[in-house]
Formats: sequence, structure tokens, C-alpha cells
Amino acid sequence: MLIDIQLLPIKFDPLSISAHTVAVIDVLRATSVIIHALSQGATEIIPVATIEEALSRITQFPEGTTLLGGERESRKIEGFDLGNSPREYIGERIKGKRLILTTTNGTKAFHLVSSGREILATSFFNIGAISHHCLDMRTDLLIFPSGDEGRFSLEDVVCGGMLIDRMLEKGKGPFSLTDASQSALILYERFKENLVKALRLSTHGQDLIERGFEEDLSYCAQVDITNVVPIFRDGVIRIR
Amino acid sequence: MLIDIQLLPIKFDPLSISAHTVAVIDVLRATSVIIHALSQGATEIIPVATIEEALSRITQFPEGTTLLGGERESRKIEGFDLGNSPREYIGERIKGKRLILTTTNGTKAFHLVSSGREILATSFFNIGAISHHCLDMRTDLLIFPSGDEGRFSLEDVVCGGMLIDRMLEKGKGPFSLTDASQSALILYERFKENLVKALRLSTHGQDLIERGFEEDLSYCAQVDITNVVPIFRDGVIRIR
Repeated sequence: MLIDIQLLPIKFDPLSISAHTVAVIDVLRATSVIIHALSQGATEIIPVATIEEALSRITQFPEGTTLLGGERESRKIEGFDLGNSPREYIGERIKGKRLILTTTNGTKAFHLVSSGREILATSFFNIGAISHHCLDMRTDLLIFPSGDEGRFSLEDVVCGGMLIDRMLEKGKGPFSLTDASQSALILYERFKENLVKALRLSTHGQDLIERGFEEDLSYCAQVDITNVVPIFRDGVIRIR
Repeated sequence: MLIDIQLLPIKFDPLSISAHTVAVIDVLRATSVIIHALSQGATEIIPVATIEEALSRITQFPEGTTLLGGERESRKIEGFDLGNSPREYIGERIKGKRLILTTTNGTKAFHLVSSGREILATSFFNIGAISHHCLDMRTDLLIFPSGDEGRFSLEDVVCGGMLIDRMLEKGKGPFSLTDASQSALILYERFKENLVKALRLSTHGQDLIERGFEEDLSYCAQVDITNVVPIFRDGVIRIR
């Protein structure tokens, strides 16, 4: 089983990943929001690239069934119901609702890898469930960190390294690691005793602290708070 | 001073690096060959992308002045004078000669970053000289690992991390590191007591061992064996 990680968020040759399971990661904060919302009872999540697309899609659904969420420059979008902090996606506010979500990096990442065989939303929140599921799939795995506006994002790669670590620990193998996945494992090992440290060191973490979202860093560093395995298919993310 | 490292060898927007110093790294083995050949008295090196281009360029120079070097699938190219092992580029064989070099990754990398302000051939061989020079330049620095057929290459990023480490140690700063350069530093720290270990772990190192070039790994892991600072300008690499 080959485990690879794509260190920069660039578009793939569709054929090259058509047989792969793909784990999309945006710890700060899109996949953390998606997993949290689904674990709190959201019915489905539609990730879209632009605000215009979000405003257009919501008109297709009956009033009161669907929420608009997301951010630009980390902040809630004007006129939207919710921002991009997982702490907002809780309880009655989200239960039974559909969510249309647009963020700077994470929601776009799903579309970059849409040719994958099965595409999973991954964060520290559900790392154990995802590692089990990836082992069960028995296909090659591509881990896809969403990055930070096209750049390498430390926190996502550390999360990817943790996924690899869990799989090596639990799976029978044999596993084949690329230079990139070996490196992700080393980066995870450096921060495994203190995941928040990686989030605080990262450029995106620093931006969030400056913009008043410091609490989100420790919140998003929580490990295994849910077992949901969200799958992106035909433009929609639902629990498996 | 911003220190960034580009983890995948992709073409740049020329304007984005026009004010940068760029350190191109291909430890296994193109920049190691380039630095070694120049330190042994080669007059200049012309890196070209294809075998055809190499065969065409050599006809422009008087007979006996110019050598053809390089590899395909790690092996010497038929009809060429030299392969891609730095151990071949030694003494009277190379002294006073021009070299036309074509390799799978490294020689192409120079052309990918040709819009940089100053482009330096870097490996463990000249890491100290390059770190001094980059500090003297006082521009932002982009470290550019050549990768392995478009993929991330561990050994080049470890070398990039060592360059960052040397600069932080010797320079006054302030330095600004990206997530990618923080990660390169962490990867270097993991291997700094045993650089050959990184070369042996890497996919490209494994390939070289399989193809009979194991000795090149420990040879290329030698640190500070020369002070040459090779600069790529107008298609040619010469000592500064």
C-alpha cells in the first residue's frame, strides 16, 4: 500500500489518482468545520469555491433547511449565517441542516482532487476513524493538505504525518512511503507531544491569532473527538 | 530577510523571484557534480535539458575544449565523456575544460528559476560558502530543491534545511521563515548527526544504490569540501 502526501495544493492529472483514496486536510479550519458540523448532526455539506456560487446554490433549497458558512481573510462573510470556526457549528444551530461552505483553501481542495476514488474530509478530530477507514479501503492513499493560498501549510502536513503514523501502527502493511510521506512523519514526530505548538508556529495559525481566533488553535488540535468519516461525492460531503 | 524553500520543482511566475537570490540544490547529483567540477578547475558549465541540445551545443566549441557529461536513469549517456558521479570530475580530466551537462532533474531546475536575481549551485560540498554569500547578498532567498522527476526529494530539502541552519547561526537577521523553511530546518535537524542516513532513506538514494552508485551517497554527503560559489547566468555556470 503506497502512502503519499502532496505537499503543495496543485491540480492533479485525474487519471493518476482515480484508484486512490484521498484524505483532504485543512486543520485551520475547513475540514475541522466539516467534521464538526457533521458530527453535530448537519445532514450534508456543499463545499463551493466562491461567495457567488454559495449565494446561488442556496436558492435551490427550501427556506430554513440550509445555512451559509465560511470565511474570507479568516472572517465570517457578510450576510452568511456562520463563519469558519468549528466552535460555531454546534447543537441545534446546525442539527438537521444542510450547509453550503466556502473558504479560502479547504473547500477548493476537494475540487482539486475530485477524480479520486473516494475523498475523505480529515482533521485531528477524526484521525483515528480515517486511519481505520483508509486501512479498510486497501487502496493507495494520497494525503492532500489544502495549503495556505497555494503555499505549504505546516499544520496540515503534521496532521497528515499523524495519519501515516496511525496507519503504520495499526495496519499490517506492507506500506510504501514516499520521501514526502517520510518527511510528514518526521514533522509529526517533532510535534506529537504538543500539536498546538505546530498550529501556533504555522503562518496560518499566526494569522488566526492576530485576527482574534486564537482559541480555534487549541480547539482544532483536539484528537479523536468523533468517529465520523465524511465522504465527498458528486459535489456533496456526507457521513459514510 | 525572508528565507523560503520551494518543496516541489514547479515553474515560477518570473516576477515573483526577480529580486531573490535562488539556491538550486540537487545533492544526488547534479549540483554536487557542478560544484565539484568547478572546484577541480573546470572553466564553465552549461546545463541543458536534453541530450540533443548537448550534442548540438558542443559543435559550437573548438575540439578538445569541451566535455559532455550527464545521465539518464542515473547512468552515463552513450557517447558522452562523463556520467553524473562527482567522483569522475577530478584532476586533469576536467581542469581547464568546459562541461556541457544534462541530467534528469538538476540541470532543468536552473532553467525553472532563471528569472531569479542571482542563481547559485548549492550542495553539501559548498554549504558554508553559499550561506556566507546569501547573507552578504541581503536579498530574500528562495531555496529550490530540484526534486526527483517532479516529486519532493528528501535529500535536497535536508540540504536546504542545513543552509537555513547555517544562515540563522551566522547572520544577524531578522529572518522570516515560511512554514516550508521551518519544516526544512526540522528535517535537517533530524539528520544532522548522520546526513548519509537521509540520502539512504530517500527514493533517489535507493535508486542509486540499486544501480551500483552507493559510494556516491557518502561522497555527496561531505560538507564544506570547497568554497566555490557557482553562479548561473545567461545559461552558463561559472565561479563567482
